[in-house]
Amino acid sequence: MGTAAVDTSRKLGVVAGGGALPSLVINEARKQGREVFVLALEHFVDLDLIPDGVDYDIVPLGAAAKLIGSLRKAGVQDVVMAGRVKRPGLRELKPDFKALAILTKASIRGLGDDGLLSAVRKEIEAEGFRLIGVPDVMPDILAGQGLLAGAQPDEQAMHDIRRGVAVLNAISQVDVGQAVTVQQGIVLAIEAVEGTDAMIARAGELRREGIGGVLVKLVKEQQDRSLDLPTIGLETVQKVAEAGLRGIAVSAGSCQIIDTDAVYSAVKQHNLFLIGIDPASMVAP
Amino acid sequence: MGTAAVDTSRKLGVVAGGGALPSLVINEARKQGREVFVLALEHFVDLDLIPDGVDYDIVPLGAAAKLIGSLRKAGVQDVVMAGRVKRPGLRELKPDFKALAILTKASIRGLGDDGLLSAVRKEIEAEGFRLIGVPDVMPDILAGQGLLAGAQPDEQAMHDIRRGVAVLNAISQVDVGQAVTVQQGIVLAIEAVEGTDAMIARAGELRREGIGGVLVKLVKEQQDRSLDLPTIGLETVQKVAEAGLRGIAVSAGSCQIIDTDAVYSAVKQHNLFLIGIDPASMVAP
Repeated sequence: MGTAAVDTSRKLGVVAGGGALPSLVINEARKQGREVFVLALEHFVDLDLIPDGVDYDIVPLGAAAKLIGSLRKAGVQDVVMAGRVKRPGLRELKPDFKALAILTKASIRGLGDDGLLSAVRKEIEAEGFRLIGVPDVMPDILAGQGLLAGAQPDEQAMHDIRRGVAVLNAISQVDVGQAVTVQQGIVLAIEAVEGTDAMIARAGELRREGIGGVLVKLVKEQQDRSLDLPTIGLETVQKVAEAGLRGIAVSAGSCQIIDTDAVYSAVKQHNLFLIGIDPASMVAP
Repeated sequence: MGTAAVDTSRKLGVVAGGGALPSLVINEARKQGREVFVLALEHFVDLDLIPDGVDYDIVPLGAAAKLIGSLRKAGVQDVVMAGRVKRPGLRELKPDFKALAILTKASIRGLGDDGLLSAVRKEIEAEGFRLIGVPDVMPDILAGQGLLAGAQPDEQAMHDIRRGVAVLNAISQVDVGQAVTVQQGIVLAIEAVEGTDAMIARAGELRREGIGGVLVKLVKEQQDRSLDLPTIGLETVQKVAEAGLRGIAVSAGSCQIIDTDAVYSAVKQHNLFLIGIDPASMVAP
């Protein structure tokens, strides 16, 4: 992940999307004594979450030229992208000329999310910025290996996890989705563009009677780890409990957990489990 | 598909699920002068659709011993399974001892639908029946190759179809789903247990602005073709139109089209396309 190489004397530009993650990144970087500039993505970011005393600009998603100009003007050296950005259609995006050049090419070539994000990465790096990942600023955000909270998953749960890993490995080859729900060996729902929360809710509607299933969320094999790591948070845990699932398996070292204390205690409170796995070591039965 | 080998002097047992397919199979077999006995699966079959003068028994799904006894008593030699059976949980199924032996084993081993159906096939054949496929009775039900109805798909549509084929090939390896929707290169929704209609409806909610997407429905690579071929019908076409998709691609020679006349004219009426493809010849870009 290259976490060791991060130089906190370099000014950090945080391209901020929705959710709590941008403010966590901003606070952590400032704690490290870093200078921080925030580029808030209009309609996604909650401006109230930007800590006082931090400079920021608001930029519409898709205004690539404006975004780059703003980062440059602020004297930013490293750029980190943090927070949720629901992938929009080209029309909702209202891209400027620069963004259009990146995005229409990507869309016509039918890139998956990773392909698109790699194109964005190249563009940002071509402009002289260094793109770093959220874990480069907050190494603790990555899930550890083994049981993280709750009770050890039983045999059926481990079986369901292995089946989920096999399915995600397969679709990972074609750059789609990173989460799946499995119950009693049956794949209830596979994530595409609807997002993990909607997929979990669907699994809740489709679940069978009897012993509950699991959510498996992994990094995609070819995923650009400085851009868009799979993430779970308190809301994920609540949705998993509501859907009657028994637990969550994430890829250790590559899945982000936002606010671990809250997540761990919610896992215990709902009698779930949360486990960090190494997908490569799990072979489907 | 072994269609050539079918001997119409052998008495046919039709294990009938939901939808119009069982009655089409029954009528076609009788037209061929075959003796027919129907085993109607309780809660799935619409008894009004069973033609007059055809003997039938009603059996709950999961009553494997009763089903086999009933087929034997009727002097059936060939068995065909036709019609929709939503895969139930073990508890809803209320299986008898024989079914339980098949099903719990299958469930614990985490078989996909194909694995489960292959287990059912083995069981039926072990009892001395010959299991044949719907296309063995109705060869015309299989989709032909090339444009079947509507206007030729354009470049973007063909691109979306290729992307869909790539995704289905990947998940086919792990015996999940057989349908996907793709718009502008983006995979909107992947089918798991919710069924194709629900997946199409979801794609309608998730679609982007601009040029519409496609439904791709293929036979799974390792699918037992005498048991459960992917099927489209009038309802599929209507859902595709409602979801704002532009057309349907099915695997030629292995996907069933129920009531082609009605399906083709609905495709034209909604300005869609319906194309039979050879997935093996389509390479993702």
